[in-house]
Amino acid sequence: MSLSAIVRGRLNYYYAVVQRVLGLLLMIFSVSMLAPVVVALIYGDGEMEAFIIGFFITLATGLAAWLPTRHVQRELKIRDGFLVVVLFWMVLSLFGAIPLWLATRPDMSFTDATFESVSGLTTTGATVLTGLDTLPHAILFWRVLLHWMGGMGIIVLAVAVLPMLGVGGMQLYRAETPGPIKDSKLTPRIRETAKALWYLYVSLTAFCALLFWAAGTTPFDAISDAFSAIATGGFSNHDLSLGYHDSPVIELAAIVSMLIGAISFGMHFSVWRSANPLNYWRDSETRTFLIMVVAATAVTTIVLLASGTYVDAPDAVIKALFQVLSIGTTTGFTTTDYTIWPSFLPMFLLLGSFIGGCAGSTTGGMKVVRFILLAKQGTREISRLVHPNAEIPIKMGGKVIPDRVVHAVWGFFSVYVTVFAVMFLILLSTGLNELTSFSAVAATINNVGPGLGAVASNMAGIPKLAKWVLCMSMLLGRLEVFTLLVILTPAFWRR
Amino acid sequence: MSLSAIVRGRLNYYYAVVQRVLGLLLMIFSVSMLAPVVVALIYGDGEMEAFIIGFFITLATGLAAWLPTRHVQRELKIRDGFLVVVLFWMVLSLFGAIPLWLATRPDMSFTDATFESVSGLTTTGATVLTGLDTLPHAILFWRVLLHWMGGMGIIVLAVAVLPMLGVGGMQLYRAETPGPIKDSKLTPRIRETAKALWYLYVSLTAFCALLFWAAGTTPFDAISDAFSAIATGGFSNHDLSLGYHDSPVIELAAIVSMLIGAISFGMHFSVWRSANPLNYWRDSETRTFLIMVVAATAVTTIVLLASGTYVDAPDAVIKALFQVLSIGTTTGFTTTDYTIWPSFLPMFLLLGSFIGGCAGSTTGGMKVVRFILLAKQGTREISRLVHPNAEIPIKMGGKVIPDRVVHAVWGFFSVYVTVFAVMFLILLSTGLNELTSFSAVAATINNVGPGLGAVASNMAGIPKLAKWVLCMSMLLGRLEVFTLLVILTPAFWRR
Ligand SMILES: [K+]
Ligand SMILES: [K+]
Repeated sequence: MSLSAIVRGRLNYYYAVVQRVLGLLLMIFSVSMLAPVVVALIYGDGEMEAFIIGFFITLATGLAAWLPTRHVQRELKIRDGFLVVVLFWMVLSLFGAIPLWLATRPDMSFTDATFESVSGLTTTGATVLTGLDTLPHAILFWRVLLHWMGGMGIIVLAVAVLPMLGVGGMQLYRAETPGPIKDSKLTPRIRETAKALWYLYVSLTAFCALLFWAAGTTPFDAISDAFSAIATGGFSNHDLSLGYHDSPVIELAAIVSMLIGAISFGMHFSVWRSANPLNYWRDSETRTFLIMVVAATAVTTIVLLASGTYVDAPDAVIKALFQVLSIGTTTGFTTTDYTIWPSFLPMFLLLGSFIGGCAGSTTGGMKVVRFILLAKQGTREISRLVHPNAEIPIKMGGKVIPDRVVHAVWGFFSVYVTVFAVMFLILLSTGLNELTSFSAVAATINNVGPGLGAVASNMAGIPKLAKWVLCMSMLLGRLEVFTLLVILTPAFWRR
Repeated sequence: MSLSAIVRGRLNYYYAVVQRVLGLLLMIFSVSMLAPVVVALIYGDGEMEAFIIGFFITLATGLAAWLPTRHVQRELKIRDGFLVVVLFWMVLSLFGAIPLWLATRPDMSFTDATFESVSGLTTTGATVLTGLDTLPHAILFWRVLLHWMGGMGIIVLAVAVLPMLGVGGMQLYRAETPGPIKDSKLTPRIRETAKALWYLYVSLTAFCALLFWAAGTTPFDAISDAFSAIATGGFSNHDLSLGYHDSPVIELAAIVSMLIGAISFGMHFSVWRSANPLNYWRDSETRTFLIMVVAATAVTTIVLLASGTYVDAPDAVIKALFQVLSIGTTTGFTTTDYTIWPSFLPMFLLLGSFIGGCAGSTTGGMKVVRFILLAKQGTREISRLVHPNAEIPIKMGGKVIPDRVVHAVWGFFSVYVTVFAVMFLILLSTGLNELTSFSAVAATINNVGPGLGAVASNMAGIPKLAKWVLCMSMLLGRLEVFTLLVILTPAFWRR
């Protein structure tokens, strides 16, 4: 055998299994494109063709990848996990863009179609489309379906995969998740966990859809908004987002749905199994999250009333709660143009999105659990100055957090900030101003969606380079930065 | 004895020693006010009276504090160190403001006088004054004298005090400084170190002044600029800052002076003792600092040339090097309005100031050594994902950095970012826009001086509340955040 043949043989051996998984995923994904076809048939407003072509291309590619590797026996190893996860979002985003690109209404460029698809699958919800209210139902449905599938992927990722990979301190969660635990092979673990979470996700989505419908939306909007809210995605069928309905009851339905999406699905699982909702409050991360939401809502309400933006207190409370939750959970729904709220409020909410929701939820941002650890560590360092010789362990939920995890969270934070700064500078170089650049990167790396300044309502008007950088930003955020960065290191490819 | 008498007795016992030190410092400080009196005599352009009154008030207060406590025997303990350091900057800033407040030219409010004095002593160099070129020499001299004394204080703080207090991982430097080392008593250590550094600081200042004078400035400007540059302060006698001279030779003199100010004075000390300038390059922090300056200058030059801002390459290089050094070393001199440079350059330089110069120098920012540790830790976390079981120690200069120090640096970083975000939001609440607020906080917490937007050249026009927040920001930055925060904790006061 020649050297190159040996190399090829080794590569085949290592990556055939990744190719097989990806082929399978693509075939499953292709089936989802039949849903918009059904929607197009029901509403008869066009764009069926784009999805049928998309279906065949995706299915054929999946088959082509899967067929030659279907007999590969090797199990997925931890390290393959990084590759599968990154490719899952990258490849599926590309194929998800096909129907959007092919569609005649809207008439999207390759860049725009990809942006919208990445934004969908990463549950960011930043859009480059305008005139949503007049788009074909199939297109609208595809957008929220991408959210919903992305959300499912994120839950499996956060609950089953990232703790195994040890990304950013998430090994913390290893012991707390459903499914077989101490198995080092990824496949059975992912399969079991996915099954349990699948039922939960579908049931909760159905519950949210009923909620929206009962609150008075059309059935189509009810399903769409439920898909979008539970995935903390933020795509809406209307240019005015949820403000279109102009109904406090529908806002309440959204508040409940976003809350469900922002709490760990491992937590939902445990509450469901124990039939004890008090477990939410007993969990230190969920409790901290809820307290922060209440505190931020209080601050926002006070400023809104003091500035005279709203005169009616209940009105101010609901507007504040809705917007705090929407940005804080990184959903990105809007009922009013909060970006012109007075004083520090718009930036306050945007900075809140860096914290995001609970780990194991569909939210973006750094996650509440990491924020708690950062705060505890910061406080510990100040205490240490007063008591230099004291050993002060960092605890959470009564358990001591190992140093390894603390280090990982620190590393995560600093890499997050650094990556943010670099993308901020690149966006400035495209000619966007400081507020727009800063908020666009924050809104994408935290998977929120809308930013401030020129990207307050949509990202249609920004330069092409900026759109691609923001695609990267959405993927970095969604993949918890490390998962994507690690496959860019030479060490990863050295076996 | 009644309970309150016991409490008073304990308080007296504990704080009498702090009062004694502070009284002494005030008396020494009062003498420095005689220097502007001499300047006023020489130039005969007024404002002598303000300094004479300031001298007597400060001297009297110092005496009143010192006299009743002069026989107190107890030595300063580590914990007293925090209090003395914080009071040093706070109390001296207040007394330093007296002559500025009393002066008729300029006619400053209490807020403005305090701001200018804090900005001077913290070597920030943000000014609320305009029309500098027409101000009396005594006032101009007092501003740079505050810088120069602040710079001396910072060096003693960074080289002798903070490592003892263990602030933000600076215990790293414990073994590398001149003076007696393993003594837990602060006073002799500070005294010895201060003496050694004092000679060095005076000599290097004289060298810089000669440099400026040789380059063609007036003797008065030469001394002023040397005071300002070595302290990386940034106050200038001219509204146009160093751009007033419009001379590349003077810019070179400033470049050399700022470089001296940005390198650890412990390092200067070791080079002087070993008579081997190669030691600069052997030190990993100094080396990294120099490499970063060169890299940032290259990037800046390329953008300046590519955008046609400068056509002449040598011209672009010197403008780039000067401005990179000025903002990167947190000096804040300007030769041109770099805030309107194209693309990402203004923000790039401002973000660079977060890194700042070397620990043990007069610069602000987080310091290069912490940046190195953050980068190494970030990289280690990515490597750990590929090699989950490997033990990868963090090394610097061949030595393994203890976990304790790594934790302290992380704590420092997150507290720095958090404090930054809070002050950013408060500034927004005063009605300043995002760019102005963001850059004003960055320019003060990093002790740079000029910001972007409405604070690009001075801070005269911002609201009063903003000025006080920025005073706090300058002090927080200068005291490495922790030193100030720790005395706000109840645990600090519990003995
Ligand atoms: K979102
Ligand atoms: K400065």
